[in-house]
Amino acid sequence: MITITLPDNSKRIYNDGITPMDVAKDISEGFARNVISAKFNDVTVETSTTLHQNGNLTLYTWKDKEGKKAFWHSSAHVLAQALEELYPGVKLWVGPAIENGFYYDVDLGEGVISEKDFKSIENKMIEIARGKHDFNMRNVSKADAMSFYRGKNEYKVDLIDKLEDGTISFCDHSTFTDLCRGGHIPNTGIIKAVKILSVAGAYYKGDENNKQLTRVYGISFPKQKELTEYLHLLEEAKKRDHRKLGKELELFTFSQKVGQGLPLWLPKGAALRERLENFLKAAQKKAGYEMVVTPHIGSKELYVTSGHYAKYGEDSFQPITTPAEGEEFLLKPMNCPHHCEIYNSKPFSYKELPKRFAEFGTVYRYEQSGELHGLTRVRGFTQDDAHIFCTPDQLDTEFKEVIDLVLYVFGSLGFEDFTAQVSLRDPKKPEKYIGDEVNWQKAEDAILNAAKDKGLNYVVETGEAAFYGPKLDFMVKDALGRQWQLGTIQVDYTLPERFDLTYKGSDNEMHRPVMIHRAPFGSMERFIAILLEHTAGNFPLWLMPDQAMVISVSEKYEKYAQKVLNLLENAEIRALADNRNETVGKKIREAELAKIPYMVIVGEQEEKNQTINVRKHGGEDLGVLSISNFENLINKEVKESLKTFK
Amino acid sequence: MITITLPDNSKRIYNDGITPMDVAKDISEGFARNVISAKFNDVTVETSTTLHQNGNLTLYTWKDKEGKKAFWHSSAHVLAQALEELYPGVKLWVGPAIENGFYYDVDLGEGVISEKDFKSIENKMIEIARGKHDFNMRNVSKADAMSFYRGKNEYKVDLIDKLEDGTISFCDHSTFTDLCRGGHIPNTGIIKAVKILSVAGAYYKGDENNKQLTRVYGISFPKQKELTEYLHLLEEAKKRDHRKLGKELELFTFSQKVGQGLPLWLPKGAALRERLENFLKAAQKKAGYEMVVTPHIGSKELYVTSGHYAKYGEDSFQPITTPAEGEEFLLKPMNCPHHCEIYNSKPFSYKELPKRFAEFGTVYRYEQSGELHGLTRVRGFTQDDAHIFCTPDQLDTEFKEVIDLVLYVFGSLGFEDFTAQVSLRDPKKPEKYIGDEVNWQKAEDAILNAAKDKGLNYVVETGEAAFYGPKLDFMVKDALGRQWQLGTIQVDYTLPERFDLTYKGSDNEMHRPVMIHRAPFGSMERFIAILLEHTAGNFPLWLMPDQAMVISVSEKYEKYAQKVLNLLENAEIRALADNRNETVGKKIREAELAKIPYMVIVGEQEEKNQTINVRKHGGEDLGVLSISNFENLINKEVKESLKTFK
Repeated sequence: MITITLPDNSKRIYNDGITPMDVAKDISEGFARNVISAKFNDVTVETSTTLHQNGNLTLYTWKDKEGKKAFWHSSAHVLAQALEELYPGVKLWVGPAIENGFYYDVDLGEGVISEKDFKSIENKMIEIARGKHDFNMRNVSKADAMSFYRGKNEYKVDLIDKLEDGTISFCDHSTFTDLCRGGHIPNTGIIKAVKILSVAGAYYKGDENNKQLTRVYGISFPKQKELTEYLHLLEEAKKRDHRKLGKELELFTFSQKVGQGLPLWLPKGAALRERLENFLKAAQKKAGYEMVVTPHIGSKELYVTSGHYAKYGEDSFQPITTPAEGEEFLLKPMNCPHHCEIYNSKPFSYKELPKRFAEFGTVYRYEQSGELHGLTRVRGFTQDDAHIFCTPDQLDTEFKEVIDLVLYVFGSLGFEDFTAQVSLRDPKKPEKYIGDEVNWQKAEDAILNAAKDKGLNYVVETGEAAFYGPKLDFMVKDALGRQWQLGTIQVDYTLPERFDLTYKGSDNEMHRPVMIHRAPFGSMERFIAILLEHTAGNFPLWLMPDQAMVISVSEKYEKYAQKVLNLLENAEIRALADNRNETVGKKIREAELAKIPYMVIVGEQEEKNQTINVRKHGGEDLGVLSISNFENLINKEVKESLKTFK
Repeated sequence: MITITLPDNSKRIYNDGITPMDVAKDISEGFARNVISAKFNDVTVETSTTLHQNGNLTLYTWKDKEGKKAFWHSSAHVLAQALEELYPGVKLWVGPAIENGFYYDVDLGEGVISEKDFKSIENKMIEIARGKHDFNMRNVSKADAMSFYRGKNEYKVDLIDKLEDGTISFCDHSTFTDLCRGGHIPNTGIIKAVKILSVAGAYYKGDENNKQLTRVYGISFPKQKELTEYLHLLEEAKKRDHRKLGKELELFTFSQKVGQGLPLWLPKGAALRERLENFLKAAQKKAGYEMVVTPHIGSKELYVTSGHYAKYGEDSFQPITTPAEGEEFLLKPMNCPHHCEIYNSKPFSYKELPKRFAEFGTVYRYEQSGELHGLTRVRGFTQDDAHIFCTPDQLDTEFKEVIDLVLYVFGSLGFEDFTAQVSLRDPKKPEKYIGDEVNWQKAEDAILNAAKDKGLNYVVETGEAAFYGPKLDFMVKDALGRQWQLGTIQVDYTLPERFDLTYKGSDNEMHRPVMIHRAPFGSMERFIAILLEHTAGNFPLWLMPDQAMVISVSEKYEKYAQKVLNLLENAEIRALADNRNETVGKKIREAELAKIPYMVIVGEQEEKNQTINVRKHGGEDLGVLSISNFENLINKEVKESLKTFK
């Protein structure tokens, strides 16, 4: 008899040789129908694996990350079988599950797969799936494994060559066999919907000197409806791609000549950035921050002192040398060392703390060109940075006030659904971090306390801390349910040590301040990208580049349109006028495309009565309004979209 | 007989052998008493030189730059004689007149001159001057000149060695003789006041491998009163030194660790910068500019295209290399290439021009550490930059509108006294410039026309143009009468060529736009430095970091002081409160030092009557006021100090 412990710590006693699926059925037949994979003592097993010792068993359904992984890993087997049947002689390399779906890397010889072939692959996969073939794992000797592939598949031979005898297993289903470590769903019949998403070239072992294989990407679901929803989401995400919207709304551009990953902000984008900056500046002023301005380079010595040089030196932009004097400068990767030097420029007493230095500081970090992506992965970006220097006694209050500020920012920008992540050090890898044990412990405690006290919905991730201290990151969910990392708050006892920062305490002795790094947006670039994808360009009204478009129904009313425009501008509404000799329909369509929230249409009746006819973005007709009523309506909406702070 | 033409083009006929002083006396005895030097046919002569041909004669008094030069050059001779008498065995090298005074470089052997010796040098010089010794030039053969110095002064021997026989002259006065090209005042008696200012080390021939000589700086005047005034000015300039004021007012600091020449803006300084930026932004918005944001680096290719690489490459910050991909970046020395790429990011029609892209763009240029000076000579600075892209037809209007903007900026900041300089190319050195002849001519004509039309007080300087185009610079005179170069406007036909910028004309053909570079402030750093020296930190009220200081006469009135502070802050007056347990006298003295324009004193009477007692910076007592009257007073002063624009 063996004792099986379930995740809720309940214990059940079974005969030796029981399987996870047997346990599932013992819990409930209904539950068992949904179980598709399992872990026993932290090792992934099949639902049909026989268990022979006491241990912890976790059973997974499609809803679990582990369940999806088994589902997509199994689907990769089905894809491989389909490819073998459709492309005789195809050689398989590897085919893992990924975040959304799976792929298989294959050598097609002279063959080619293109988009027009996707449908037949999908059909073949569904045909196989419907056979309800069980996935069966079996151990094989190295010699047998070798002889199975020798002369037929040099990629698998190479893989097996590196494995130890006694650790090798195959998985069979239907007529198909693959070298495999396990982790499958019970049978192919659970796969109900399949989509081949794309093909791409992929070098064997990722080395561009090797042969290029074909990578076939796919995704699969237990229900057709789920595939439909996923494809819709994909379509929506494409429409909301910030790179596409940034171009359409003329917010930013890139130039090969200026350099990859270095955005150029066009007038509408620069104005948007400035509005976001002014919004945060106003809140920061209320919260007692002071703005500073520092250069975008610093001497190498500065970063040796801060510890950044050792961390950023090798895979970063290389140092800037000077003609004669042997000085070396670095593009600044972070603003904190500069702010430490500002703190150090005069002596402080405890009565003057906390000092809160804020800067929209542009920093530069090298990223390989292949990793660059629109505004979310760039080589130069502007942090909405601030560093708070406080006494240890003030840390708790300060940390909580920063949380308040971050929540205000998210609220005013329509991010209502967010979680927090507390990133602590990995105690097993002390070499990854600088600074001493006692201070790390204090900093981690302060963050955990603040997160608890503020009632945040948070998870703790060990090993995810910055090298100089633990942190609290905010993850928001956008309109499509995708998670993004935004603002960050970090406690740092290390830089104050390294820069020898001090203040005079009430005891007249010199003490070390604590430092908080924080950036509610994270960076202007990344934040605007996420905001674009979240809102599809329909920003909160206070932030919109253009809030209203005055449209004259014909050239006769151009003068009145201009008068309306001037009145709106005087009321500080950002408006444009479209007086082109085009149809009202065309003007409205273009204003819709430009995401203008309000269209103000003026013609004969409106001029006569000194009124306007208002239409909202998306089509809602507000009818005839007086200009002052419209102004009030806008002002009210602006006010409501901005939460109150302090 | 010879004909002498005077600067007013009048001609006078004299006997051959007449001297400039004879001509002066012929004009008027009174005038002759003031004449101290002369130029004949553009060659500097003595006032006693005999003239033997027709020619143009200019006679100079102390008021002329040339007169001062002769005065100070002659004073250097007197200094040299005094040093020979006081330090026997001293060896003279060279002793020129400089912008303010003169110096002499001497080898003192084992001797040393320090500040305590200045008085005896001055006394000796005055003693010599009172002898009313004439300065007499005489030609000497190279052999005679050599034999005069050989064995006694290797520095003069080396000088003479490089001269051609027949071109060498000596100047005698009293018992003193010096190798000299001429240009003296009639006699030493005109020198009435002398001051030795400083001594410094100076390497022989400026080469640090050579022996270090002693450089003795002095200044002299024809009247004691003028020396007194000059010393007062020097004292004032020291008080107004922006480096000193910047520290006292906590505007900016430098850190050796961050790097020389890289200012760190402290909270009050950053706020000052921001107010200046917002002031210009508001005017620029009215004038149709659009803000953009660009990175602080650009690929090497960008600057090869722009032509900057060839000009800045060698003596600038060296390129930034990247770990793997062979890319090279440069710290941006100018914003124009980035703005050209923004222009290039979409096609423009003539109807959409001019485009005016503005950016407070921080640029980096390497300067040798010895040349760095506070904020006026730095390695990183923020230009209030903009680039106007227009059709050739629009150039004239655009250029004039930029002049209007610059004049508005100067007026609002209290610079009332300024001149303009039109810098044209040196037609003899075409290799210094890029771009073709026809475009240069067009650009120079446009600037000259605009300067004329706007009635500017301008001078034309040939050879002072930028390498890519001619320019109009504004020179302001500060409160001490010192000249500073501020704003600049430059026409450029070259970058549009190099970046292949185009627009579609009304003829449907593609055309090349013209570009104007402009920066009314020049740079934020330099402008703030000059503004500090001009105002001694007493900025126009709209710009002051703190406009008022509320001073409670004792701790009892702290609560009322806080109430007053809140009221002032609500009225958008930047105010502080000083509620320390100190005397009112001390609080006022400190507010005076901090240059706070208004001190608002509150005590028993004020609290009772809900009034305030106001004292202006500098001491003027405005007596008891209601808070709202004080708010009106401030608002009125702010409004008046800001000129109106558009």
